[in-house]
Amino acid sequence: MSLGIVFLSEVFGTGMLTLLGCGVVANVALKGTKGNSGGFLMVNFGWGIAVFAGVYVAAMSGAHLNPAVTLGLLVDGKAEFAPGVAVSAASTFTYFGGELLGAFLGAVFAWLAHKQHFDAEPLAASKLAVFSTGPAIRSYPWNLVTEIIATFVLVFVILTFGGTPSGLGPLAVALLVVGIGASLGGPTGYAINPARDLGPRIAHALLPIKGKGSSDWAYSWVPIVGPLLGGTIAGLVAHSIPIMATVAK
Amino acid sequence: MSLGIVFLSEVFGTGMLTLLGCGVVANVALKGTKGNSGGFLMVNFGWGIAVFAGVYVAAMSGAHLNPAVTLGLLVDGKAEFAPGVAVSAASTFTYFGGELLGAFLGAVFAWLAHKQHFDAEPLAASKLAVFSTGPAIRSYPWNLVTEIIATFVLVFVILTFGGTPSGLGPLAVALLVVGIGASLGGPTGYAINPARDLGPRIAHALLPIKGKGSSDWAYSWVPIVGPLLGGTIAGLVAHSIPIMATVAK
Amino acid sequence: MSLGIVFLSEVFGTGMLTLLGCGVVANVALKGTKGNSGGFLMVNFGWGIAVFAGVYVAAMSGAHLNPAVTLGLLVDGKAEFAPGVAVSAASTFTYFGGELLGAFLGAVFAWLAHKQHFDAEPLAASKLAVFSTGPAIRSYPWNLVTEIIATFVLVFVILTFGGTPSGLGPLAVALLVVGIGASLGGPTGYAINPARDLGPRIAHALLPIKGKGSSDWAYSWVPIVGPLLGGTIAGLVAHSIPIMATVAK
Amino acid sequence: MSLGIVFLSEVFGTGMLTLLGCGVVANVALKGTKGNSGGFLMVNFGWGIAVFAGVYVAAMSGAHLNPAVTLGLLVDGKAEFAPGVAVSAASTFTYFGGELLGAFLGAVFAWLAHKQHFDAEPLAASKLAVFSTGPAIRSYPWNLVTEIIATFVLVFVILTFGGTPSGLGPLAVALLVVGIGASLGGPTGYAINPARDLGPRIAHALLPIKGKGSSDWAYSWVPIVGPLLGGTIAGLVAHSIPIMATVAK
Repeated sequence: MSLGIVFLSEVFGTGMLTLLGCGVVANVALKGTKGNSGGFLMVNFGWGIAVFAGVYVAAMSGAHLNPAVTLGLLVDGKAEFAPGVAVSAASTFTYFGGELLGAFLGAVFAWLAHKQHFDAEPLAASKLAVFSTGPAIRSYPWNLVTEIIATFVLVFVILTFGGTPSGLGPLAVALLVVGIGASLGGPTGYAINPARDLGPRIAHALLPIKGKGSSDWAYSWVPIVGPLLGGTIAGLVAHSIPIMATVAK
Repeated sequence: MSLGIVFLSEVFGTGMLTLLGCGVVANVALKGTKGNSGGFLMVNFGWGIAVFAGVYVAAMSGAHLNPAVTLGLLVDGKAEFAPGVAVSAASTFTYFGGELLGAFLGAVFAWLAHKQHFDAEPLAASKLAVFSTGPAIRSYPWNLVTEIIATFVLVFVILTFGGTPSGLGPLAVALLVVGIGASLGGPTGYAINPARDLGPRIAHALLPIKGKGSSDWAYSWVPIVGPLLGGTIAGLVAHSIPIMATVAK
Repeated sequence: MSLGIVFLSEVFGTGMLTLLGCGVVANVALKGTKGNSGGFLMVNFGWGIAVFAGVYVAAMSGAHLNPAVTLGLLVDGKAEFAPGVAVSAASTFTYFGGELLGAFLGAVFAWLAHKQHFDAEPLAASKLAVFSTGPAIRSYPWNLVTEIIATFVLVFVILTFGGTPSGLGPLAVALLVVGIGASLGGPTGYAINPARDLGPRIAHALLPIKGKGSSDWAYSWVPIVGPLLGGTIAGLVAHSIPIMATVAK
Repeated sequence: MSLGIVFLSEVFGTGMLTLLGCGVVANVALKGTKGNSGGFLMVNFGWGIAVFAGVYVAAMSGAHLNPAVTLGLLVDGKAEFAPGVAVSAASTFTYFGGELLGAFLGAVFAWLAHKQHFDAEPLAASKLAVFSTGPAIRSYPWNLVTEIIATFVLVFVILTFGGTPSGLGPLAVALLVVGIGASLGGPTGYAINPARDLGPRIAHALLPIKGKGSSDWAYSWVPIVGPLLGGTIAGLVAHSIPIMATVAK
């Protein structure tokens, strides 16, 4: 499979991910929507199903949708990122690029779908929350710890999914993301994906959003570094413990 | 398969869809029900499972249940709407007719099941909300944008479901509809289906509902045109991007 | 398979159904529980998963768990109630008996599990609600209509599940019950099963529940007659419309 | 398979279980999290998906994750705890040890992920609730009854899952745990697993948690004895009633 196809596939899949994911936050957080104040469980289901839809759309490229997943597969020592896509520097950056561009574009469409509610919302913080994550209590070291643990769970469990019948695959990942959100999303809003956070943050910075405030670039490195570290650790653990690798077969 | 059977199948399936779908809104919106004020996530699950049940009931005709889906398959260039049902002008209008009649009938039964709560409810707007969608902030162009984006997601992801084991099929569509509701249903109430909106609106206009107000025909074209455009765009994109078509195989 | 085994299987399965089903109502309705006021969607999921567990436990006898299902299969003209269980008067009453006894026993255990919260709860109506359904607005004819429609949905969709891979089977029924609760459970509390309502009502009448009030026998015929009529109509419709029968194959 | 591998597998799986399970309670109970006061259904889903993730991670050892499950299989008379793992005193204690250590470690990571919210939370009772269960109304005999009934449901239904396609397996257990929580978790918080309660309680006692109070050792025997009795009864019933054993094949 050409890397152009991989790129396009990841753009579409990650776009679907942030369109639905940023969308559910918009529905809960912005003024006047029908789902306003719908609760954290609704946000968890929204993001879970966002992953679900994205996995189907990007099935051809293995539906990474997340640089932490790409990195976890690389570190685990896989030979291929998807059937017919060899692991290499070029393919790694193709995934990274597609993921980032897709995450950016999905956020743009989520903004368009909620345009009037962005205009009606008075709080700049609620507008940024639609795009990118932020900590409930700011402390870079502890926020990093939370993101590392949450992303470790995501990538490590995905690496053990290898033996799952493919039909349940997207559902299993979706449920996992619902659970990570409910269980580990409380302190930082669970980025667990550098592209999911950075792409929409760039969109927030570039788009002509009425009454928007800062894009909080000071925090932006945490949801990049934390997930990359968490995914790397997950890949290393899966690789180091042969029984886990065996389970994955 | 004869078009009469296709028609009947779509009537039953789309009837199940709006019976359960309009029903959950009645439970949340009307006075005195046990699920009153049950929240938007409950509405999302209600509609998702409404689709789930409808897909089983109309399995024989491919369970379109939605003119936007029929149109998306047509534009994508499929040869058949369902096994044994060739794409043609006659079959297209058979689907449209069955979908509309079913959506009308399902809404009638949803009204009968909640008859006393319609009588007890003082607000005309809550009664109309059981039948048809309406915008949170009225703006025809932006409402149209939201419906186009949400329906694009529905039809585009369904077109990529081709490779899914059939057992997960109805569940996958159900979850997708839960997610579209949670993520993109906030501004307009996610019609994403012209029949789902128009059929019940006609029922609202014709039924002897106590204290009903306007059927809001001024808005009625938005949930028809938006979903048809969204479904068409989804079909065109799926058709134009060969890798997506390949994924669907 | 002997009818004794069928009886035992339905006792266990329907017991599991009402243990978990009555249990979730106790958790939401009784004073001092951790799930107090947990919402209608939680009740819907509780009953859905109650059916899910019951279906596994009673898999050997086809897991009817509900006289309306037994009757629907009878009216539909099936030759067997389950593999190796011929349809006959004796087998029909074996199912009815097992379903009723199981529903009674499950409610007893649900009471035991919540014994202290029954003691702490001041309202007699909340105690009865754990056992049996009651209407939000009392009107026997309209309550009957609601139960007929809701049970029609249950039995009719189950009759179309024939072609489902068996693995999804219990999950499909569970989701259907979640949806019927959310969408059609608002007016009467969705008995949709004569045994589920009568068995626990007998338990309520017999058990030494502190401060219990009336068992509301005046209403008790509605959740018996309504579901039996709804199941019969569903069986007749499935039988009369050959395409539906075909879908089920 | 060596018992060392079994041990490691159960440590990882049960660690995943309590990391996500204790995590969702932290998100709901501790001050300042994004899911604060998210409701009991969110807790139920969090624990259900915690089991789901743990089952995948510990698939190789049969994913007991719970001494009550290990005991239930033993009492039911199974020859193997997992493919290639014979039932013996040594293997039984290997499972028990791995489950307890894993449950301890998972709670430690759940604490690390929510470190700042533990610091911000003023109530010692809320901090203990993240780690271990406690009764809504304290009464050791009745609390024991509730834990016995709830664990009976867990182990008995799992023993009937034998015939399930493996793909649905983890999902089926997850849904069952969601349902047990919703339906029988109101009085005691549903330990239904001695390791899940004791391991985190030890962590609570050992960790330097700011402002922590008592670890409530007076209650700690209930969530050990109750689940072990419930699991034993489930194994005995499944073993004594041949039809149930047959269903499980």
